[in-house]
Formats: sequence, structure tokens, C-alpha cells
Amino acid sequence: MKAYEIQSGFGLDQLKAAERPMPVPGRGEVLIKMRAVSLNSRDLGVIDGFYNPNLRMPFIPISDGVGEVVALGEQVSRFKTGDRVSGIFTQSWISGEPTQENWVSTLGSPLDGLLAEYAVLPEQGLVLVPNLLTDEEASALPCAGVTAWHAVVEEGKIKAGETVIVQGTGGVSLFALQFAKLHGATVIVTSSSDDKLERAKGLGADFGINYKQTPDWNKIVLEQTNGRGADHIVDLGGSATLNRSISALRVGGQISMVGGLSGFRVEGFDIIPAILRKARLQAINVGSRDMFETMNRAIEQSGLRPIIDCIFPFEHAIDALHYMTKGSHFGKICIKF
Amino acid sequence: MKAYEIQSGFGLDQLKAAERPMPVPGRGEVLIKMRAVSLNSRDLGVIDGFYNPNLRMPFIPISDGVGEVVALGEQVSRFKTGDRVSGIFTQSWISGEPTQENWVSTLGSPLDGLLAEYAVLPEQGLVLVPNLLTDEEASALPCAGVTAWHAVVEEGKIKAGETVIVQGTGGVSLFALQFAKLHGATVIVTSSSDDKLERAKGLGADFGINYKQTPDWNKIVLEQTNGRGADHIVDLGGSATLNRSISALRVGGQISMVGGLSGFRVEGFDIIPAILRKARLQAINVGSRDMFETMNRAIEQSGLRPIIDCIFPFEHAIDALHYMTKGSHFGKICIKF
Amino acid sequence: MKAYEIQSGFGLDQLKAAERPMPVPGRGEVLIKMRAVSLNSRDLGVIDGFYNPNLRMPFIPISDGVGEVVALGEQVSRFKTGDRVSGIFTQSWISGEPTQENWVSTLGSPLDGLLAEYAVLPEQGLVLVPNLLTDEEASALPCAGVTAWHAVVEEGKIKAGETVIVQGTGGVSLFALQFAKLHGATVIVTSSSDDKLERAKGLGADFGINYKQTPDWNKIVLEQTNGRGADHIVDLGGSATLNRSISALRVGGQISMVGGLSGFRVEGFDIIPAILRKARLQAINVGSRDMFETMNRAIEQSGLRPIIDCIFPFEHAIDALHYMTKGSHFGKICIKF
Amino acid sequence: MKAYEIQSGFGLDQLKAAERPMPVPGRGEVLIKMRAVSLNSRDLGVIDGFYNPNLRMPFIPISDGVGEVVALGEQVSRFKTGDRVSGIFTQSWISGEPTQENWVSTLGSPLDGLLAEYAVLPEQGLVLVPNLLTDEEASALPCAGVTAWHAVVEEGKIKAGETVIVQGTGGVSLFALQFAKLHGATVIVTSSSDDKLERAKGLGADFGINYKQTPDWNKIVLEQTNGRGADHIVDLGGSATLNRSISALRVGGQISMVGGLSGFRVEGFDIIPAILRKARLQAINVGSRDMFETMNRAIEQSGLRPIIDCIFPFEHAIDALHYMTKGSHFGKICIKF
Repeated sequence: MKAYEIQSGFGLDQLKAAERPMPVPGRGEVLIKMRAVSLNSRDLGVIDGFYNPNLRMPFIPISDGVGEVVALGEQVSRFKTGDRVSGIFTQSWISGEPTQENWVSTLGSPLDGLLAEYAVLPEQGLVLVPNLLTDEEASALPCAGVTAWHAVVEEGKIKAGETVIVQGTGGVSLFALQFAKLHGATVIVTSSSDDKLERAKGLGADFGINYKQTPDWNKIVLEQTNGRGADHIVDLGGSATLNRSISALRVGGQISMVGGLSGFRVEGFDIIPAILRKARLQAINVGSRDMFETMNRAIEQSGLRPIIDCIFPFEHAIDALHYMTKGSHFGKICIKF
Repeated sequence: MKAYEIQSGFGLDQLKAAERPMPVPGRGEVLIKMRAVSLNSRDLGVIDGFYNPNLRMPFIPISDGVGEVVALGEQVSRFKTGDRVSGIFTQSWISGEPTQENWVSTLGSPLDGLLAEYAVLPEQGLVLVPNLLTDEEASALPCAGVTAWHAVVEEGKIKAGETVIVQGTGGVSLFALQFAKLHGATVIVTSSSDDKLERAKGLGADFGINYKQTPDWNKIVLEQTNGRGADHIVDLGGSATLNRSISALRVGGQISMVGGLSGFRVEGFDIIPAILRKARLQAINVGSRDMFETMNRAIEQSGLRPIIDCIFPFEHAIDALHYMTKGSHFGKICIKF
Repeated sequence: MKAYEIQSGFGLDQLKAAERPMPVPGRGEVLIKMRAVSLNSRDLGVIDGFYNPNLRMPFIPISDGVGEVVALGEQVSRFKTGDRVSGIFTQSWISGEPTQENWVSTLGSPLDGLLAEYAVLPEQGLVLVPNLLTDEEASALPCAGVTAWHAVVEEGKIKAGETVIVQGTGGVSLFALQFAKLHGATVIVTSSSDDKLERAKGLGADFGINYKQTPDWNKIVLEQTNGRGADHIVDLGGSATLNRSISALRVGGQISMVGGLSGFRVEGFDIIPAILRKARLQAINVGSRDMFETMNRAIEQSGLRPIIDCIFPFEHAIDALHYMTKGSHFGKICIKF
Repeated sequence: MKAYEIQSGFGLDQLKAAERPMPVPGRGEVLIKMRAVSLNSRDLGVIDGFYNPNLRMPFIPISDGVGEVVALGEQVSRFKTGDRVSGIFTQSWISGEPTQENWVSTLGSPLDGLLAEYAVLPEQGLVLVPNLLTDEEASALPCAGVTAWHAVVEEGKIKAGETVIVQGTGGVSLFALQFAKLHGATVIVTSSSDDKLERAKGLGADFGINYKQTPDWNKIVLEQTNGRGADHIVDLGGSATLNRSISALRVGGQISMVGGLSGFRVEGFDIIPAILRKARLQAINVGSRDMFETMNRAIEQSGLRPIIDCIFPFEHAIDALHYMTKGSHFGKICIKF
């Protein structure tokens, strides 16, 4: 089968199409014919060697994907051939709280990813995807969708009447926007692009703030909430945003620490403003299979559609990754097999 | 001022129009010119002597109402004249968990109710009502709205993808339906009337079950949920429904015990089915001022409108109560001043 | 190997010693040489055909036991030979909330139990037991210990300063008493025996009520709590106690519905007292592997010792079950191999 | 009456004994004859002008104290003369979540404190203190006790078998140690003094780490917890400790951000380690009246005694504050009237 691998060194220019033997499902495993994958900025970080300098090579990248079950190993009971499934990002995190052991079971590093025509995964590490989604839409869910669901719904317990801030218009942010709206919340989006803010409003965002034009966007949030502050902030900026997020938070509010688009190290993190708001900062690291399935039920019942920026064919997978480095996309970049 | 009172005995035929001296707001109190009240079945029970045989008379009934602040006692800071306010049902339950002491502070028994041209209440016992609601719509909130919010949102923590069952189409049920839909849930309504089921679907209900035609509605619920059962059931039937509600519940699900339309005593309550579902039965008793204000924010932001069956003029208040005894209404019965 | 079986019919007199082939651990399974089991009243119910009329025979009863790992199947990673392990009651309930599927994976019905010299169990269905416990003490944990931990700690979130009522002095009750004391709570025990009340006080109970002498023990509870009521009640009585438990509860309190010593059907369950207390009734059905391991850490660190009534040798296992039917024990009845 | 005031400028040398008119309780207020106060480092910060540069002068400092009710204003119902009461730190935070408005109602800035022979406070802002405590012990509770209870019990939901780290041996830390032990947890204390570590062990601490000798105390925590990390860390160090606290935390663990003994600004706060642990950082700002009363019940029932370092007479109040600046105390510094 065909697969893309990094073979002897890090960097996007090291990613090569390669031929691999067809994998064979063992006991409790299934063989999946891949149909679509979606890209996350983490995938670029893995390819660049940022996440795991000791990655075992040759290595197949890309954590998120959807395929069809085409063969079953012995003693498989959760799936049958023909089922459309997605791998869960943290393969061994089934339910409840995570453990340190779970972190070594993530797809696309340290485990091989899904940028290959076929993949074998344990049936415990798969979920059925919502029927009404296309393959590409469904491929958007494992990291970006589950992270946003975990932040906004599971930990954030968002409810109608609350105000949520999402930073930027990347995959997690757009899902967070959609999930917050699905629960009746008011959503404020920040972006450096007026055009992207308009598109976010098209998805239901109630208010947009261009943080380039208005660097002290926290003040606008206070105005928009009658001085109360936001109930929940999905912080994706990291170093450049965390202090400001706290300033925009209501007393008793919650920040989901999800990302570090501007860096993962906050120079001068202020504790007093956090104490004055009794702030809760909850770090989020994707989520469990239970969360994935709960989210899928919500998607299935509500008809929510993930936002896809564009779809590349498998043959042009490397172009898709290059396109991602430009950062101009709105929604997920997918690859179709 | 004019008021309706029961003066010397229980029963709807004892309710009389009367003249009372104009009340005067003391320190921390406000004078409210009533604009609308809404009826709850509890009000009939109070008038009939069912709730409180030792009610102090003469007594003004009806717990729920909306009015305009027309005068302020000393040291009032939460309101100004012209504000449109609603009394909270449990006057002293501000936030957090209730206490036994809270229960003696409920409007419309043991405290006088609001079926009078003017009322004086402590400013701590009032909330601003959502701007976009009419007086009658706003008057529907204190009991029925807050009870449903408490059950479905505060204790039920309902989220998108979950299935909620509401029993009947009374005030609490319709609010529960609306709040569940507002949070992206699927709603199944039970009723003895196909006509009311149709109207409930008009409000967003996903499925209706006529429990007269299908007494074992729990089986339909299991079919509709792929054998999983409902996540949350707002039980208003009481004696006739509680066991059946448990049978319709998913493992780990929750029942809000809110009412007893068919009686408050369950003959033969079965514990084993509850244990086999790890069921949670949570009794609900209206709610706190914090919940009221949180709900109001959700209503304000979402544009949700309470369902009003009909509006009687103050002069025909007794007719409104008689109309309620027939049980044919769909939504709240209101009285306009 | 030797095992006890019911072979062709229900009833304790049908339980026979038998010879079975030595079981062989498959992939992911371990072979356990049993060292001790403990008895639960459920085991008698299983033997009598009360729990599962369709039990597959021949059947080995008794759900709870401890043994030593003596051989490993392929791909076992959680345990090594020599480890002392206990089966978890609900084999497939690892963490988070249970599902309907979990209930068919319980030991001692429908799955074979542990009253045999050797048993094979999947490594996922085992936990290490606390080092400092004897085999018999450790064998007391899977049902009685985990149920009490689930009720009092996981769902009850008991904390210092709260008052817990435990009904009777059976296995679950004594563990509930010990766990409540471990968290700084005040414990009231009810029993029909002054002698058992004294022994419960020896374990730390703060107050005992003989419910034969004082049938309205709920009044005593109110006196003991300055009229406030108990924060948490572990209801084991079922039909005879549930209404009374609600009467003894504080506003906002919680009842764990765990058992039905006096029957599982409450004739005349009253909803109004529950509503007047905003009562939560939480059914409990043993618990997950996560709970078991969390409890074990608490036992290990605190030095808590399960209460053992007496220990029978394996050869006299049937005597142990007969002894249990008398109901005179205080703490667990164990069988040693 | 006698009181200590800062009259025209900040600084401990500006604090003077003064004569004030006897305060008179208004409606809903009580007059309290002070018996004891306890000192918090915040009091020094207030006197130094660090907390509130716009403090209205003359100003009476010290937030925490206990006294006897000696006169009642009109309509007081919660207390009677002779009751021994303590002011709650955040006067208007009764229950549930705090609001921004609550923060302007704190004693000892911006409201006058209790370093005076008499004080008048609203009855809503008082609690009865545990009977078995001395006046000085009871005076230790409002800030240090409630903060620790809020962190460890209310937000931390600490339970037996968990490991808690407390930093230093100040007032909050010693209460956190005591409350954690009261709930059956294992406690590790860090300090720069071997002598204080020994004294902490005398109070029940299971393990002590001298962070001067072992700056990478997080490694010791991992060793002590079999590589798992601590379940809960009460972070008082702030700038010097927050990153290290995250490194010592288990996956899914919680940090209470309570103080900033080494500064309130973290230079280089790392988000990735937080994400790798799904860490929760919960800022804590004292607590509500409900928490205070719940804590008092726990103290009353358990017999827990606050740790008092020393007691100064009212006449030497300024000496007490100077003594505090040295930082050599273990437990609370009190002043007796």
C-alpha cells in the first residue's frame, strides 16, 4: 500500500511517498481502508520534530482520519466490515480521567498516523462516525472536535445565557463556536482578519473583535457583557493571550488552556488578576472515547457540520501540509483518498 | 387598593374581591404596581387548603407575578422606579443550596401572594425580568420557568445529543421542552392529547407519545433511543409515572421529581430497576434567585418566549382560576391588571 | 481442581463440591490461585435463583475473592506472577459512568464466581490489593467495599462535619461507617441489636439507634443534628426504610439506595417529603475499577482494616453459606483456601 | 473606645492607638466587644499601601477577629447577646459563587477592620464560632481557615488516599494540612526550615521537604507518589513555585493558586507541562459564609484546633505586627483584648 513517511530526518521536505506492506489485523484489531484525513498544526510540529525528537522512523504522520472497516481480526465485536470509523486520538483513553499511560497511545506520534491507504487499529481505539457527515467532515473530529467538546461542554459545562470567547478561527475555535451556539450561548470571536470574523458570524458568532485593530480586546468583552466578563474563554493564543484572557473573564469564570499559537511560555503570568476573579484555568488535552461518542451523538442529532476549508487528493498530500503552513485557511484542511 | 382574598375558609368559591389599604415599602423594600400574574396548579391547592391548612387569613393568593417599581423604601440599591420586576418564589433563597428556613419564605403561601393591585416586597426578593418579554410572558417565569431551569439545566446539566422526556404540556413541561431544545437536546413529550402533542412539536419537540393510546410509553422511548433510554426525565406524573420513568431511563440517567399530577404517593415503588440503571432521582423545589437570573440571561439572549394560553383581565381573575381547573390549557394562564 | 457448583437446580442444598479441569489463561488473561473469598447476601440470592433464573449450569458461585497470580497468558502487562489480586465485581466497568453492557460482566452471576481453587480472569478485570491486608480482609472489598466507597465518597462526596447514617451492620454498612469516619464525618448507625451497636461504636460510630426499640429513629436523627437532618443516608433497608430515610434527611441531602434487606418494593413511596428536602436519591450498583483502585489507595495509606466476622476453611464452604443465612454475623464471612 | 488606626499615611510606623466614639448598631446590625484578632500577611500589605492605595483614612486594620455580641440593632434575628461571633472576611458573599460586587465588602480593606475594642457588623456578615475553640483559636479562622477549606475541601474535594502538598507553614498551609489529614489524605509539606518541617509532622504531615536543600522538590514528590504526582497542591509560593507545582502534579490533578509569598508574577509560565497533565489551576479568594459555617461544623465535630504561634495583648498590637514581619512564626499570631 501507499503511505507517506518521514524516514530519516525531520522537516516537511523529508516527507516522502513510500510503499509499505499491507497491514494485517491481529486479535481485537480491524483493518481500515482510509477515506479521508484532516490536518492539525500538531501534525506539522510532529513532522518538524518539535513534539517528539525521538520519534521512531520511518514514521507515518497525521493523527486524524476516517475510513471503512474492510477486515476484522479475531474477537472483534464492536464493528463489522462496511462500518465507517474514526481512530480516537488518545487510543487508550476510554472514559473517566486520563492517566500518564494514556499519553503514549496517541496517533500520529508516538504511534504511526493515518496518512496511508490502510491502517490497522484496535477496535477499542475506534468510534463510529456520524452518518450524515461526509468523510472529510468526519475526519475533522478526532483532535479539533473532541478538544473543543472537552473544553466547552465537558469541563466548561456551557449553558444558554453564557458568553464564550474563542480565539482565532482554527479548527478547535470553529468547533468551540459551533458547540457553544448549539448550547444556546453567546459567542465572541477574536481574529486578526475582518474577513474571517465575517465568516465566523456566518457560522453563528454573535460578535467579532479584530485583535490587531483592537489589541485590548478584553475591554470590548467587558463592554459587550455589561462589565461582567466572559463566562468561558477558549485560550488558543497562549503566551500572548493568557493574561488578557484572565482580564476578560467574569468572577468565577473558566479558561480552557488549549493552545499556544503565539508560544507556550507566558512571560510574566500575573496571579493577582486570577485571584480577583476566582479564575479557573483548565488545561485540555484532546479527550476520551466517551467524549468522542457523546459529541458524535450531539452532531448526529443536531445536524451540525464541521467546517472544511479545502480538500486535497491523497496524491497531493504534501501540498496540503504546505498549504497549512501559510495559515490562511478557515476550517479544516482535508485529504481525500 | 383592590385585591382578591380568601377570608374565612378554603375553596375557590371563598375567593373574593376586597379592598386593602395601600401597602408602604419599609427599609430595603419596594412598592410594586402589579401588571400581570400567572397561575400555577399550586395556587389552586393553596386556595383549596391542600398545601397549608393553617394559612393565616385573610390571604391573597397567586405566587407568580410581574409589576413596575413605583416607590422605594429607604436603602434600596438594587432597583429604581420604573424597573419591571418579578418576585422570586422562595424569597429568601438567594444562591447555593436551600435550607429549611427558606421554605417559609414562599410567596402565595405562607406569605401573601400577588393577586392585588400593589405589593410590597424586599428588594432581595426581586429580579429584573427580560426586556423582550411581555408582562404576561414574564409573569410565567417564577415557578414554572425556574423549576424547569433548575431541573433540566442546573441539576440535569443537559447537553446537546441527550434525550429528555417531559410529561404533559403544563407550564413546567413546556419550559423544560424549550430549555432542553435551547441546549441542543432531543425532546420526547408525553400527553393524553394528540392535539397537544402536535402543538408541542410546533415548539420544537422531536417526538410525541400519547400515553392513553400507548400506556407503555417507556418501550417507545427505548425504541426511539436505540435501546439506550432517556438521559433525563422530568417526572410530573408522580404516582402513576415514577416507576415507568425509571424503566425509560438510560443507565446513569437522571429523573427530576417535580410533580404529582396523578398523586404524590407511589404505590409499589421498585428499587431494583433503579439500581440496575444507577438511576438518580433528584427532587426539585423551584429554585434560587441566582437560578432565576441565570435563566433570565438565557431567555434574554436567546429570544425564547414563554407559552401563554390565554389572558384574563384582573376583574375576571376568578374566572381564570376556574378555567385552570378544567385542565384544557396549553401554556400559562395569565391575568392582566 | 476443586470447585463448588450448583449443577442442576437452585438452592443452597444443591451446592456441591466438584472436580473441574484446570483453567488455562488465554491472551490477556491470568491464572489465579485463590486464597480467600468473602460472602455477600447476593451470593445466596444467586444460589437460590432469585437474581438470575436463567443461570447457565453448572455454575460456580461467589463474586468476591483474592488470589495469587500463578500464570500469565500472552500479552499480559498489568500483572506478574506472585501478585496478589482481586477480581472486580463488574469486570468490564473500568472507569467513568457504567453502561448497560457492563451489567452482563459481573462475577458470580452471570459469569462464574470464585469458589474454586483456581480461576482465570482477564487482566483488565483485576486489581492489586492493599499490601497490609490479610487475604481474608482483602477478599471483603470487591462488592461491599466498592459499593460503600461509591456511595459515600464518589457520589456522596462526604466531608468532615457532615453526618452519615448507615443502616445495619452488614458488610456495606461497616465499610460505609469506616469510610465516613476516614473523611471526618459523624456517623449514626441503626441496628436491631444493642450488642451490634456497641461493636459499631467500637469502630468509630458516634451514635447508635436501636430501631426495634425506637421505630421512629428519624426523630432521633433530627435531635442529634439540631433539627437539621442527616447529610447522607446509606439506605440498605429498602421497603421498610426509604420513606423514613427521607424524613431523616436534611434539605439538600442525599440518600444512596443500595439495598433491600426488608424488600425492594416500597409500598407507598411519598414524593412530597422528598420535594420538601430537595432530596437526591442515588441508586448505587457496586462500582468501577477506577473506584476500586482509588479505594485501595485510601485503605493502603490510612491503614483501614475491613471487619471480618469469621473464617471458614474451603472444605467447609457450604457451612459458611449456611452461617450467613442466620444473619448473626458482624462484618464479613470469609472462606480460606 | 480604643482602636488602632493608620491616619495619614501608609506604613507600620504610621499605625497609632486612637480614641474613637463607641459605634452604635443600626437595623440588622450587632455591636461586638472584640476578644481576639489574628494577623494575616495581607494585613501588613494593607498597612503598607500595597493592596489599596486609595484606602480611606483614618482606617482600622486587621480583617480577622472574634468577639461577643453585646448589643443588637433592630430586627436582628440570627444572634443574641452573649453569642461569640466572627466577622466573615467577604461580608456580602453568603453562598454560591462570588460576584465582582462581593470584593468591595472585605473587612480590613476597604472596610474598616477589627483592631478596636468594639465593632459593629451586619448580622448577615457574622458566624457563630465553634464552642470548643479559645477566642484566639477562633480568631484564626476567617481568612486562613476559610481559604484552606475552600481550596482543599470545596474546590479540591480532597478524599482519603490522595496526596496533598502544602507549601510552607503559614496560616493557610497549616489549616490545609489539618483539613487534608481530617479527610484521610497524605500530606507533604515543603519548608525552608527543618525545624518547621518537624513541627508540621507533629501536626500529622506525612513527609517534609526542605526546599532550600532540595530545590527540585517536585522530584521528591514524584518518588513519594510512585511516579504518579500529587493530587492537589496548595500553591502559596506563586512566582517561584507555580511551574514546579505543575511538574509535581499527577495527570488530572489540581493546583489551588492561593498566594504569592515569592511574588505574584511568574516569569516564564509554561503551558505545555500543564496540558500534559490536564492540570486544573483554581485561583482561591477566601470564601463564602456557607463555607465558613460548613468548616465550623467540621471543626466542632472533629475537635480540630487551629495552631497559634503566640498571643500579644491589645496594648502591644503593634509589636505583634512587627513580629509578623520577621516571618519566624509557626501558626497564627494573635492579639487578645
